Amino acid sequence: MTLEEINALPDSDFVERLGDIAEHAPWVAARAALDRPFPDRDALIAAFQRAIVDGGVFRQNELLGAHPDLAGRAAIAGEVTDASRREQAGAGLGSLTTEELNGAYRQRFGFPFILAVRGADKHAILASFEARLEGTPDEERLTALAQVLRIVRFRLADTVIA
Amino acid sequence: MTLEEINALPDSDFVERLGDIAEHAPWVAARAALDRPFPDRDALIAAFQRAIVDGGVFRQNELLGAHPDLAGRAAIAGEVTDASRREQAGAGLGSLTTEELNGAYRQRFGFPFILAVRGADKHAILASFEARLEGTPDEERLTALAQVLRIVRFRLADTVIA
Repeated sequence: MTLEEINALPDSDFVERLGDIAEHAPWVAARAALDRPFPDRDALIAAFQRAIVDGGVFRQNELLGAHPDLAGRAAIAGEVTDASRREQAGAGLGSLTTEELNGAYRQRFGFPFILAVRGADKHAILASFEARLEGTPDEERLTALAQVLRIVRFRLADTVIA
Repeated sequence: MTLEEINALPDSDFVERLGDIAEHAPWVAARAALDRPFPDRDALIAAFQRAIVDGGVFRQNELLGAHPDLAGRAAIAGEVTDASRREQAGAGLGSLTTEELNGAYRQRFGFPFILAVRGADKHAILASFEARLEGTPDEERLTALAQVLRIVRFRLADTVIA
């Protein structure tokens, strides 16, 4: 889609087309639609991100919880195999499988481990997982929200021609 | 200091002793002091972090701005030398010096690049710098705040006997 098309859509069509940009959270697109017309794609991205930042704790928590487990995502399951975990057995959590890491994270924080993996290699993903498992709930909430914003940016960049 | 000593301090002494845990922001300690007594060190850390999260945008921005540039910190200046930057010249921003990266970051976001470097090697620091320079202001504000919370946690862990 072009930005021109996006600016011209009726609100309901805008939400239908972009409602999944934020994971299972069409309210983000519904809020962003009100900021049209967007002069450029960065403004569109900013409107989606701002909607999340201003969305309030309840909706933010719902949005965090709606993200799939990293282990449940095929691309990552391929990237971070249990075999590769075991190779890293020296590094503390290294002996845990991805599924076990996900379980430990979700149990500690109440939402899944969220990471915008684009550009991150296997090593970076695992290092991030281990560092974040040691964080506090307040640290992780901010970090996870930042990752959600980042994912939204990547998805809009893939969906809308600049 | 022990947790027992911390719980027993008059408020003003508490702020005097722990006022620098959050960079140039004694209001964080002043707020946390009200939550005493703390049953354990994690509760102390949570109180400091919560004070920042609930501190409001104005004070949070002041706190972000009060942090020193990464390049200005001797330990990092030693870790991330300009020579090492040049070694990475293939990686986009790799040809920039740490000082140039800091300048670009501060110009884009209005506050210095903040990273809790403990446990991060040179490669991780540079990778983080480059990824974050591409972020949006909303992403970076959340990410930087999370790093501030993390720094506060490390400092309290160094200061207070568990």
